[in-house]
Amino acid sequence: MGPPVDPIEFWFDFGSGYAYFAHLEIGRLERATGCDVAWRPFMLGTAFKVTGAQGLSSTPMKGDYARRDWQRLADLRGVRFAPPANHPVIALAPSRIFYGLEESDRTVANRFAAACLRRYYSDGEDITEDDVLTRCLDDAGASRSHLAFARDERCKEILKNRSQEALGKGVFGSPFFLWRGEPFWGADRIDMLIEWVVGRSDAKRLPDEGSGR
Amino acid sequence: MGPPVDPIEFWFDFGSGYAYFAHLEIGRLERATGCDVAWRPFMLGTAFKVTGAQGLSSTPMKGDYARRDWQRLADLRGVRFAPPANHPVIALAPSRIFYGLEESDRTVANRFAAACLRRYYSDGEDITEDDVLTRCLDDAGASRSHLAFARDERCKEILKNRSQEALGKGVFGSPFFLWRGEPFWGADRIDMLIEWVVGRSDAKRLPDEGSGR
Repeated sequence: MGPPVDPIEFWFDFGSGYAYFAHLEIGRLERATGCDVAWRPFMLGTAFKVTGAQGLSSTPMKGDYARRDWQRLADLRGVRFAPPANHPVIALAPSRIFYGLEESDRTVANRFAAACLRRYYSDGEDITEDDVLTRCLDDAGASRSHLAFARDERCKEILKNRSQEALGKGVFGSPFFLWRGEPFWGADRIDMLIEWVVGRSDAKRLPDEGSGR
Repeated sequence: MGPPVDPIEFWFDFGSGYAYFAHLEIGRLERATGCDVAWRPFMLGTAFKVTGAQGLSSTPMKGDYARRDWQRLADLRGVRFAPPANHPVIALAPSRIFYGLEESDRTVANRFAAACLRRYYSDGEDITEDDVLTRCLDDAGASRSHLAFARDERCKEILKNRSQEALGKGVFGSPFFLWRGEPFWGADRIDMLIEWVVGRSDAKRLPDEGSGR
């Protein structure tokens, strides 16, 4: 057994369209690098207060462009991209539930996050609604009682701390990857990230020695 | 001879680091698509007034990230990236000279623009200074007398009109490509642009039937 491999941090806001496209490539990222990916939902609005940026969808010209670009990416990947009409939502509830789940089982938490992204961006379901979140818990094989994490004080606190951690690490967008402190912004930096990690990893594992995720 | 091929518009601000990396791939873009690329320098600040964005370098966190990302891109491509200390400059002079040159010879204008980007980003020379612009004219094989375009009223007018044209076409960043109205933002969208054009071009030419540029 080699030394432990540094994980890749995958920071994202559930309300970010590009996070959806990034999450489709997490499996490939793990296989190509031999690294675990630590899913890190956070509230991008916290960073926007510092950078003075606004959400893509509400920025003149950029919002129109993003909708077009998302559609092209979806066509290229053969997936459906159809977020609910009230996109972008402020995704406090799924983010809190994620961290509540993560305390006991990372794999279940990751499956829950993937289910949220899929239902929101592919099926147009609003993941701020309890019945949608319940279905995402079902998808992840988690108990429906965990819906309570959405209003749990400790989970609120964890999410706040994670959003502050993101800010402290210079995470100003979504998706945003960090590996040994090196930052990679955007789903379109995944290939560069892979090249970077593979070129520097002293503890590369073979795919079949992976984490089982 | 086939029908004329729609050109790809390459909008960029000389003061944009990512424009430098995009310009390195224009030859590849032309060969892969069979399209001419129309170089379109413009003043990105005009668009920023509409989107509310600020320049990368002056945005908290994002500026630090961009400098790191540019360095990585330079390392990957084996080029030197070392803009002058006062980067980003407001590149009115080279943009006006470009349009002055373009009226009589597109090829010379394009060579001038490439020389400006190379001297600024690779050699750290400030392209708002007359002696640097003179060297760029030399590089392009153009007469030094064309330095006067930098203060020429008609060239000022053309540049203003081009920047307004960019705005009207939804160009909010640099580099930004347009082909038959389809927008592609960023040097990292060049592969998608190639795929898009090649998939739709009804008048694809072979490389040796190109424009001779």
